[in-house]
Amino acid sequence: MATNGYKKVSEEPQRQIHQVNPYGPNPADFLSNVGNFQLIESTLREGEQFANSFFSTEKKIEIAKALDDFGVDYIELTSPVASEQSRSDCEAICKLGLKAKILTHIRCHMDDARVAVETGVDGVDVVIGTSQFLRQYSHGKDMNYIAQSAVEVIEFVKSKGIEIRFSSEDSFRSDIVDLLNIYKTVDKIGVNRVGIADTVGCANPRQVYELVKTLKSVVHCDIECHFHNDTGCAIANAYTALEAGARLIDVSVLGIGERNGITPLGGLMARMIAADRDYVLSKYKLHKLRDLENLVAEAVQVNIPFNNPITGFCAFTHKAGIHAKAILANPSTYEILKPSDFGLTRYIHFANRLTGWNAIKSRVDQLNLNLTDEQCKEVTTKIKKMGDIRPLNIDDVDSIIKDYHTDISTPKLRANNTTTEVEVDELNEVSEAKRQKTEA
Amino acid sequence: MATNGYKKVSEEPQRQIHQVNPYGPNPADFLSNVGNFQLIESTLREGEQFANSFFSTEKKIEIAKALDDFGVDYIELTSPVASEQSRSDCEAICKLGLKAKILTHIRCHMDDARVAVETGVDGVDVVIGTSQFLRQYSHGKDMNYIAQSAVEVIEFVKSKGIEIRFSSEDSFRSDIVDLLNIYKTVDKIGVNRVGIADTVGCANPRQVYELVKTLKSVVHCDIECHFHNDTGCAIANAYTALEAGARLIDVSVLGIGERNGITPLGGLMARMIAADRDYVLSKYKLHKLRDLENLVAEAVQVNIPFNNPITGFCAFTHKAGIHAKAILANPSTYEILKPSDFGLTRYIHFANRLTGWNAIKSRVDQLNLNLTDEQCKEVTTKIKKMGDIRPLNIDDVDSIIKDYHTDISTPKLRANNTTTEVEVDELNEVSEAKRQKTEA
Repeated sequence: MATNGYKKVSEEPQRQIHQVNPYGPNPADFLSNVGNFQLIESTLREGEQFANSFFSTEKKIEIAKALDDFGVDYIELTSPVASEQSRSDCEAICKLGLKAKILTHIRCHMDDARVAVETGVDGVDVVIGTSQFLRQYSHGKDMNYIAQSAVEVIEFVKSKGIEIRFSSEDSFRSDIVDLLNIYKTVDKIGVNRVGIADTVGCANPRQVYELVKTLKSVVHCDIECHFHNDTGCAIANAYTALEAGARLIDVSVLGIGERNGITPLGGLMARMIAADRDYVLSKYKLHKLRDLENLVAEAVQVNIPFNNPITGFCAFTHKAGIHAKAILANPSTYEILKPSDFGLTRYIHFANRLTGWNAIKSRVDQLNLNLTDEQCKEVTTKIKKMGDIRPLNIDDVDSIIKDYHTDISTPKLRANNTTTEVEVDELNEVSEAKRQKTEA
Repeated sequence: MATNGYKKVSEEPQRQIHQVNPYGPNPADFLSNVGNFQLIESTLREGEQFANSFFSTEKKIEIAKALDDFGVDYIELTSPVASEQSRSDCEAICKLGLKAKILTHIRCHMDDARVAVETGVDGVDVVIGTSQFLRQYSHGKDMNYIAQSAVEVIEFVKSKGIEIRFSSEDSFRSDIVDLLNIYKTVDKIGVNRVGIADTVGCANPRQVYELVKTLKSVVHCDIECHFHNDTGCAIANAYTALEAGARLIDVSVLGIGERNGITPLGGLMARMIAADRDYVLSKYKLHKLRDLENLVAEAVQVNIPFNNPITGFCAFTHKAGIHAKAILANPSTYEILKPSDFGLTRYIHFANRLTGWNAIKSRVDQLNLNLTDEQCKEVTTKIKKMGDIRPLNIDDVDSIIKDYHTDISTPKLRANNTTTEVEVDELNEVSEAKRQKTEA
């Protein structure tokens, strides 16, 4: 299972430095699925539990189609017993004929299972709380009861010929012996997947690694993981789970879900492409990520966070003078993600007091002016002085450069070529983004 | 060093379940500093490299004072050679007499060091690129040259009686032998700290653990870590670095910095309080976190991300029916962070189609109405039906409950008591947050 059939030969020329990717799978992880993972996309289940969510049937269908087009492996939907509309929406999405398999998510109870198998889903995700906390304060059942219900529900769902996953809830606060016992039991009767859930969002990566690795030695089926993000580790935990041999990760667009949500689809794509670019590019349409995020953000009335991985307005903006020099020479110096993989563009933010003469020299070249390195350093000093007084925009910098140029020589301004104009437009987009933020 | 003098006896009664915190420090990590870490707050250095940043002198002073009040151990400032104003701002902040130590951040060069030591700072953070990428495309120097410059700068700064840190840049793409050699050299001549930097934001937690643990066996001084967040692992990497024996973490408010930034102060506080609540509460004024984030967000013209740890508008909002029951019985079931630690409040979002009868029963009680469990279940069905048709607000739910109550009995409405009103206000705040998002 650790080898995968998806590897395609990269058409890119080899990078000049480093034949080995230091961010790739760890060769010591024999069971790693970093290069062979699958996504269970839960915007239409976990995401419905986000405070702002109210998806109409039309919006659910639009989102499901967009997720399918992006290339997710599974789409998980709210339980059909949650409400009458939830049930009919589930049936409607099953009828779309998407490439992605459709799942629904139910409590470990025959009442729920009987409804779920009639909706037309490809599989059912069953969950039950196994921690002392949930056993005492939620359903009030003991481990024997849990095991009995699990066996009954699993055998029923299997008899209908569809996939079944059994997951514990709040796994990291559950007794490890209880957990392994029940996973072993359900694995024997033939579930497709067992799930680990960090329901309260507090697991840390090494803890995840240990639990998944242990579970991997107990069960033969695939392992799915679900991580909440209360303490900011949901992406890292997902990655570490794959290193330990988990195969499937639950994600949602922008991570929307209960409280501050779960592993975000976009953030996980950033993480995974740094580790195995070929696999990620072979499976997922990354250039559709921004549209997908905009679709969901609009539906739940939130803004894309300014610091969102990949699509945050400044994710590919470089500002410090010492960074700009290297970025201009070779983007890989300060950028492990290629913006073009996501249909996005890189910006060098040179209109500020932290700017350096290499960034300004690049701007001078764009303006088709002739200045020596010494002259570029001199005009950079003038720009930094102005940048100390107030925020600068590109016009300010261009004026300072042009004035300086006029002072020292006969103007040699040639007509702008197309490339220059495109790049100016790009830089203006940064100003535009700033302006929009100001008005927001 | 791993033992700390900060532990105070918790005044809280012991939780009913679990005497041991499963999210606490791993007992197998003998060198762990999870319960003994320090913060180098870099909003006024790394944060200045954020695309939107332009801090006036007054704003820098306001932010420095707020950080000091929050309790950060160090405040790091932009290099005094970045611009004339940067130098005078650095001097002004040094004169404030804050409890936090003031650092400035410079290139590994005597020209920078000579200016830095004259500003009045308590310490200097020196950085140089050690990866092949940066050696080739940035400064163009070999490891011998780097070592020579480092020794010269370090001895000079030490001769002035102030703290000195030496950090590599892009550490995870640097040759491990080169790295350990130079760290060993600078440790021998007596730096206070050595730094590891994930400059491109792609390190993963287990990789961090290995590098920090190895470095820990080579140097005697403290280890500081700096993580960018391009692939969403900056908080998890910081935590894992502490597990491996690092002592200091670079943070900024909301994580602002180059591209999408570094480990955020608030997110790291969420992570650390889950691991060692007593230590975190003894050192940092967590109830000031929201004000601090608002101050910086306003200064750089961004919104607090909707999914921000702790202060995101929905970080303590519970929605799913099956969660609400347990949360009402014991908040620890689905919440590892206590909102009151941060001066915040928990919300049960019951006005939606995913609601459950336990949440509605709690609302019925708040309204001082008398309904049996069966009646609560019946009215919940009505509410879910309405929730299928359109988004609900609290007034909608209350109307449905009151209509139902009128139908089945003589009204027994008593006057609201104070507790109820407070809770209603809290719930209204959720609607308010939704409304603001809609308008934004």
